[in-house]
Amino acid sequence: MTQNPITPTIPLDAKGARHGFLRLPYSRDDSAWGSVMVPISVIAGGEGPTALLTGGNHGDEYEGPIVLQELAATLDPAQLTGRVIILPMMNQPAFAAGRRCSPIDGGNMNRSFPGRPDGTVTQKIAHFIATELVPLADIVLDYHSGGRTLDFLPFAAAHILPDKKLEAACMAAMEAFNAPYSMKMLEIDSVGMFDTEVEEQGKVLVTTELGGAGTSTAASVAVARKGARNLLIHAGILQGEPERAPSVTLDMPDARCFTFSEESALLEPLVDLGDEVTQGQPIARLWPTDRSGQAAITAHANLSGILTARHVPGLVKMGDCIGVVAQKV
Amino acid sequence: MTQNPITPTIPLDAKGARHGFLRLPYSRDDSAWGSVMVPISVIAGGEGPTALLTGGNHGDEYEGPIVLQELAATLDPAQLTGRVIILPMMNQPAFAAGRRCSPIDGGNMNRSFPGRPDGTVTQKIAHFIATELVPLADIVLDYHSGGRTLDFLPFAAAHILPDKKLEAACMAAMEAFNAPYSMKMLEIDSVGMFDTEVEEQGKVLVTTELGGAGTSTAASVAVARKGARNLLIHAGILQGEPERAPSVTLDMPDARCFTFSEESALLEPLVDLGDEVTQGQPIARLWPTDRSGQAAITAHANLSGILTARHVPGLVKMGDCIGVVAQKV
Amino acid sequence: MTQNPITPTIPLDAKGARHGFLRLPYSRDDSAWGSVMVPISVIAGGEGPTALLTGGNHGDEYEGPIVLQELAATLDPAQLTGRVIILPMMNQPAFAAGRRCSPIDGGNMNRSFPGRPDGTVTQKIAHFIATELVPLADIVLDYHSGGRTLDFLPFAAAHILPDKKLEAACMAAMEAFNAPYSMKMLEIDSVGMFDTEVEEQGKVLVTTELGGAGTSTAASVAVARKGARNLLIHAGILQGEPERAPSVTLDMPDARCFTFSEESALLEPLVDLGDEVTQGQPIARLWPTDRSGQAAITAHANLSGILTARHVPGLVKMGDCIGVVAQKV
Amino acid sequence: MTQNPITPTIPLDAKGARHGFLRLPYSRDDSAWGSVMVPISVIAGGEGPTALLTGGNHGDEYEGPIVLQELAATLDPAQLTGRVIILPMMNQPAFAAGRRCSPIDGGNMNRSFPGRPDGTVTQKIAHFIATELVPLADIVLDYHSGGRTLDFLPFAAAHILPDKKLEAACMAAMEAFNAPYSMKMLEIDSVGMFDTEVEEQGKVLVTTELGGAGTSTAASVAVARKGARNLLIHAGILQGEPERAPSVTLDMPDARCFTFSEESALLEPLVDLGDEVTQGQPIARLWPTDRSGQAAITAHANLSGILTARHVPGLVKMGDCIGVVAQKV
Amino acid sequence: MTQNPITPTIPLDAKGARHGFLRLPYSRDDSAWGSVMVPISVIAGGEGPTALLTGGNHGDEYEGPIVLQELAATLDPAQLTGRVIILPMMNQPAFAAGRRCSPIDGGNMNRSFPGRPDGTVTQKIAHFIATELVPLADIVLDYHSGGRTLDFLPFAAAHILPDKKLEAACMAAMEAFNAPYSMKMLEIDSVGMFDTEVEEQGKVLVTTELGGAGTSTAASVAVARKGARNLLIHAGILQGEPERAPSVTLDMPDARCFTFSEESALLEPLVDLGDEVTQGQPIARLWPTDRSGQAAITAHANLSGILTARHVPGLVKMGDCIGVVAQKV
Amino acid sequence: MTQNPITPTIPLDAKGARHGFLRLPYSRDDSAWGSVMVPISVIAGGEGPTALLTGGNHGDEYEGPIVLQELAATLDPAQLTGRVIILPMMNQPAFAAGRRCSPIDGGNMNRSFPGRPDGTVTQKIAHFIATELVPLADIVLDYHSGGRTLDFLPFAAAHILPDKKLEAACMAAMEAFNAPYSMKMLEIDSVGMFDTEVEEQGKVLVTTELGGAGTSTAASVAVARKGARNLLIHAGILQGEPERAPSVTLDMPDARCFTFSEESALLEPLVDLGDEVTQGQPIARLWPTDRSGQAAITAHANLSGILTARHVPGLVKMGDCIGVVAQKV
Repeated sequence: MTQNPITPTIPLDAKGARHGFLRLPYSRDDSAWGSVMVPISVIAGGEGPTALLTGGNHGDEYEGPIVLQELAATLDPAQLTGRVIILPMMNQPAFAAGRRCSPIDGGNMNRSFPGRPDGTVTQKIAHFIATELVPLADIVLDYHSGGRTLDFLPFAAAHILPDKKLEAACMAAMEAFNAPYSMKMLEIDSVGMFDTEVEEQGKVLVTTELGGAGTSTAASVAVARKGARNLLIHAGILQGEPERAPSVTLDMPDARCFTFSEESALLEPLVDLGDEVTQGQPIARLWPTDRSGQAAITAHANLSGILTARHVPGLVKMGDCIGVVAQKV
Repeated sequence: MTQNPITPTIPLDAKGARHGFLRLPYSRDDSAWGSVMVPISVIAGGEGPTALLTGGNHGDEYEGPIVLQELAATLDPAQLTGRVIILPMMNQPAFAAGRRCSPIDGGNMNRSFPGRPDGTVTQKIAHFIATELVPLADIVLDYHSGGRTLDFLPFAAAHILPDKKLEAACMAAMEAFNAPYSMKMLEIDSVGMFDTEVEEQGKVLVTTELGGAGTSTAASVAVARKGARNLLIHAGILQGEPERAPSVTLDMPDARCFTFSEESALLEPLVDLGDEVTQGQPIARLWPTDRSGQAAITAHANLSGILTARHVPGLVKMGDCIGVVAQKV
Repeated sequence: MTQNPITPTIPLDAKGARHGFLRLPYSRDDSAWGSVMVPISVIAGGEGPTALLTGGNHGDEYEGPIVLQELAATLDPAQLTGRVIILPMMNQPAFAAGRRCSPIDGGNMNRSFPGRPDGTVTQKIAHFIATELVPLADIVLDYHSGGRTLDFLPFAAAHILPDKKLEAACMAAMEAFNAPYSMKMLEIDSVGMFDTEVEEQGKVLVTTELGGAGTSTAASVAVARKGARNLLIHAGILQGEPERAPSVTLDMPDARCFTFSEESALLEPLVDLGDEVTQGQPIARLWPTDRSGQAAITAHANLSGILTARHVPGLVKMGDCIGVVAQKV
Repeated sequence: MTQNPITPTIPLDAKGARHGFLRLPYSRDDSAWGSVMVPISVIAGGEGPTALLTGGNHGDEYEGPIVLQELAATLDPAQLTGRVIILPMMNQPAFAAGRRCSPIDGGNMNRSFPGRPDGTVTQKIAHFIATELVPLADIVLDYHSGGRTLDFLPFAAAHILPDKKLEAACMAAMEAFNAPYSMKMLEIDSVGMFDTEVEEQGKVLVTTELGGAGTSTAASVAVARKGARNLLIHAGILQGEPERAPSVTLDMPDARCFTFSEESALLEPLVDLGDEVTQGQPIARLWPTDRSGQAAITAHANLSGILTARHVPGLVKMGDCIGVVAQKV
Repeated sequence: MTQNPITPTIPLDAKGARHGFLRLPYSRDDSAWGSVMVPISVIAGGEGPTALLTGGNHGDEYEGPIVLQELAATLDPAQLTGRVIILPMMNQPAFAAGRRCSPIDGGNMNRSFPGRPDGTVTQKIAHFIATELVPLADIVLDYHSGGRTLDFLPFAAAHILPDKKLEAACMAAMEAFNAPYSMKMLEIDSVGMFDTEVEEQGKVLVTTELGGAGTSTAASVAVARKGARNLLIHAGILQGEPERAPSVTLDMPDARCFTFSEESALLEPLVDLGDEVTQGQPIARLWPTDRSGQAAITAHANLSGILTARHVPGLVKMGDCIGVVAQKV
Repeated sequence: MTQNPITPTIPLDAKGARHGFLRLPYSRDDSAWGSVMVPISVIAGGEGPTALLTGGNHGDEYEGPIVLQELAATLDPAQLTGRVIILPMMNQPAFAAGRRCSPIDGGNMNRSFPGRPDGTVTQKIAHFIATELVPLADIVLDYHSGGRTLDFLPFAAAHILPDKKLEAACMAAMEAFNAPYSMKMLEIDSVGMFDTEVEEQGKVLVTTELGGAGTSTAASVAVARKGARNLLIHAGILQGEPERAPSVTLDMPDARCFTFSEESALLEPLVDLGDEVTQGQPIARLWPTDRSGQAAITAHANLSGILTARHVPGLVKMGDCIGVVAQKV
């Protein structure tokens, strides 16, 4: 099989704090011998487990990259029992462009696993992570938010898994993260996801949705920061007392959670994130974008629960998800 | 002088509710005899004053267009003492593209007044509004929000003006609008603004900033809806009791309000909209976007007050405004 | 095997007239949870055969979509013996863009069959049609015209097939359609075509070329309308008398039919569609596009017959087909 | 005043046939010392009048360029009494791109006269033609067709002018051209047109519309070829017998000629070019482009007459002209 | 008159070394309150004259920016008699894009003087430099090279001027720069140039062409470095001995210097920079780009002299300058 | 297996000189029945070996295409013992665009072998060459230069191969070419290269790097011309005396040859092509592109030797190769 062309510019197994790049040769019109450079930090202290912390899986989600840049710059190897591998921006080309997907190949990294060593740029990065980094890890934290087009209630999530022991470990890690909301997810279409790759390798995975709209706030960054620290303590890598607060447990039972638009329209939201809704309640009105004086069309919730995600851009396109309703467990 | 080529498809002075377009011939590669069509509604009842209500001056600000679409569709001419002229999306090409400026000519409509009858598409629309619609009005309400790249505390605003009588009328109208915040503004560079054009014609003007991030919420739309109704009652066009609540009065004294970035960076906000800040306090940290393990650069407030506006995108570019601090009066 | 991610929003097997979409989740930069929505109508009456009528296989061909929109809006289930499934615009993204191929992935739908459930957007749509809709059909009518860059004499076509019984059924259906011209085609490169997929499933297929130049006329739409009605009567789904007129039968014997340009040039046509030409006759002159005063280069017919297709744009590129000569049978 | 930077590479006043360029320096990213090169031919015989023949005023109209390339390559100076100046593609950048307007600056040349020597590329070319070529001419023939988005009945046209003597000379020249249709036009908005520039210099002008759809046919080229020869004989420059046939005289009385679309839609034409229509008659149906099963909207003629122009692309955008009805005189 | 909206972030008249920006507010789709930031350094020592050193007038020319970055970082105010104002990249948006002209407005800065305070971004920067910086200077050095599409012999240049005293001062400064070649230039079209603005303000100007091809070499940077030091010594701002070497004086007498291409072609150079050529000598061959087996067209020198500039890209477009021949004085 | 859809328009095995195209049908938005046309010349004389000469493998490298156009136009079949097949521009779409890779599919042809008959345009061309042309050849010469972003010392190269007899034949052919430098290369990642395809078919291969920067010079073309003639004499196809001069033999031992940039910066080269460098010596300085007054970062050689390749564009991006050091053997 073809060898993955990526070379790390730092060793992955040395003690101390090292900062470098996964260098991927990328020959193109504007640089015949150019490279994609994915930042990586490895902070290793005394013997112990390895945590792999990742952000920028989608390039327009910011809580993860911020907290991981802070951790990379401030974690003291002398205080670690084990090793922390940090990729603040997995899909670096997407992150640099402020986009969900890579501008090089359109690749959505969270649909590109397990990757290919001879594939597109996104697939090559995914393949290196899957084959060279995940095997080093005991626990993986992959930060997500809604990106430019979705906004979420802040939650950590773990998946319902066939391996119930692994599932329990993931749920425990999710609870350790202690976001304001906690989501137990049954993925219906998990093909290509980083989560699936990690779980299939038998590793503990926590993922999150911590906000969105292509931005972050002091409040949403605080959730991300607390969660990372809690998780490293939970994993036994960092010492100290976890910071705890109540968390609401949510569940997305089936496809009725989603309300999709059958119009391209100017979107008027009728409820906001965290609001309670009942089945059949109007959650948005859709106004024409090209003329005035016409009545709006109404979009409804298909389920009772609380509004957990919403469409961000003021214009909604036919087929877009307008909102997601989840149920308290 | 050249005549403005725009033709309204409805009369502007007939009783009743009429909905049509300002049709501007626009010959181009993909339509030799095409037109730009700017929606307009005129709802006219008994004799009385005229209000001109405008949204979509910038095409990525949504509270105005939503409430104006609702008003256009629901205002009953029989209940009006006077006339309401509604342009829910003044810069229709920008609105249709979900952008601040027109994709046709790059025109920022709020820098295009008083326009030109033989200018660009944006200038022609501005010229028609300035010469044909503003003269019909007694009071003008122009809705703004922060657009995709800024987010604001919700406020209505009026300008410090040389004509103190007009200024007083504008301040009264701003107070009638009754947003959660009220801003008394001294524009330093008002060249080309719609506001300036309206005020120079001696008309009462209220403008707003009601949110931003290229989206709207049920809460921000409610502010916009209440304000329009209050204003029409204030103007004597609509009957009824205004809906009142406390409003905080703010002031932006000088250029120290603004914190600009001298880095292109990953932006970590340290305070959120409405938070109190003191002069010299860090309000954001700027992290590298291309490498890990480096310290952040800190950006500070130049003034004590409350955070009134903030940069939205997770990446900040050199020269971008990071935040605005205003002072309670 | 991966499951096709498309969900129809209407049932395909209920009585009555239903109009909805094939909804295909499509996550992208400007909509993390967006969808492609392909319109579909199902009109089902009494027990009987199923016809699948498709347009917009190429997105810049219009007779099919027009007539199928009319049929979808007007067919009365009470008058049908059987079912009509209508996809007025199979490659909806291409149709919406007015292009031959999809702007999402460049996909030429008629080279994308049998499709892939985990492929590009175009391949996923093709796969759903091939695996979920074609199996429901007894007869398939796929409308084509020349698109923006070709113009054709109006003809219906059937293929020479190895299964002579199926071939005879296809020829009979083509004759029932009764276009002004009828073409018996031996496809040389049929890989990826919708036609091939349908025929390999043993279904009767009629295809057409009804004009082109990225437009339609009242006359070309009339051909399309008459043909659909005649075909539904032929299939036993609709009652009534077919409308019949003479049809000229044509044949494209081999590659000599085509005249390709070896210049990029300003194209002067010397013959028009339907004109008789003889082998070696000049059919076009090619003038320089960047200078004046030079002689033209002449392009010739390689075969005697009638001009059946022609290049539309006034500029021809090296390698473009200038014209096609077919022979009366 | 700034001098026009264009240099002709051939003399304009020497006897014989010369072919060269109007060379306009154009410094840009991809050529610091590059030029725009507009082809020009001058064919001068014995003493006599000067005709200026122009095509490619809009870059996607082809009958003019074809016939002018033929004339430039074949006119024999020995057979001319006078001089013929030929610009087969006035707006060369637009012509090379196959677009109505210049890809360099978006310039519509027929709205750019009298041009500016220090303006955009399109304005500089217009200025040179207006100040250096038109003054040399006694008669000007400017070829137009509908371009990619319009299609016309073939007509030559002359304008109603304040100078009745000039008007009579123009009408006589139009009749000499002898197209199948002849149009007497009262331009309502003639600002920036080449026609206006020529007429204001007191020169005889004939213009045409000879087809469209971004293509030409053997038939439409024949009209253009006959007209040029007839006109040169009429002007006394060429010897020989004019070729005559009947011509229908048309008139476009006022804005009721035009039917504009107030929908973005799939366009179904109900009448074709040359068809008679009566006021109020439906001329097109507008179908939705994004869903099936809905009724069409109907567009009507505002005037009785014959359909003289029509929208070409199968999709019509809000504000596009659907059709033009002219009246036989 | 409108005030220029640019604010320097550093004082221009304080002693010491200061580094900041010319901040120009630039509101646009992707940053409503963004800015263009043009780097500026001011290094001021004891009383004395002021030199203004500029690079990046065209954004793809590199010797100037490199040497000016070095000077800004290393000049010691304690060793200066006077002041050095450094703009390493005048047209910062063009420089950041690696293009000759600004990607914002297409502006060629060297055709944008004296600028406009209410114009495009490029015009606003030019206006600030012309009205706020040039008046502070006694001597101006503006670095140029050929950019991506031209390559030059390395020369410093001064202009033939109506003010002979100023001309002499400029020639002396050019000689002080002491490039391998020295060019006495009579500009034919100097409208909009920075040079003209400076000279019209009565200031001494030296300009250069030091290489090109969108790159620099150790050798070409050495020429730029030596010249700046020599010039500051010549101006009395820096102490020390100038570094001197022989310089060949050149002259470009008239338009025969230039050979333009009348073909779009694959360019084969027959002589290299510095080679002697005689009038009529072939300097390049032009091969077809789309077919093989055809003979080349030959391009000739119109003058005897040495090849001083050449077209860089391997493909030449019709109208491009192939080469420039200058004569030794 | 699918058949390759490419048709040559000339026979490949007839005596004499023939010039035509490899015609590849390419249906697309702007030409439904269009083609890619790759120029090919076959010059065949008396019985003898076949040489395949290729240029334009990367579309922005010019010495090969120039010399191959000259050979195609001038080789006399009567003087050949054998056959010469010439593809002056293998990746014609890339060559026409002046880019390294194809604008159609982004394909880097030298990473596309052995190609696919049902793949992208680039893969189809590669497949035809690999399966139809290489098998006809005894010896293959593939011309390369650095393209727009790299510049090389002029060398011919042969590979270290497992088949030592073939290696010796390749080395002999490289020496016959007799470039100023000769490189013995051990390719580390040879997957997809044309070289590998040729060598795996057991054919003698010579490749080159003859300059770069997206241009050519009289000097670099002379190297290419001499080499082709020498090689054809070496192969026994052409008669005559080879032209010989000294050649320096170089070797690139391992990855230490390369210096990559870990900054996006303004690049100051400290050494030029052919300069001797010692391990650890600074070869470039990297200056900020967005601010002045900061120190440069230094990039070093990792090996002693001579500078053999360098980055061309004045701005370097993170991950770009700054320079390559090779060692004299």
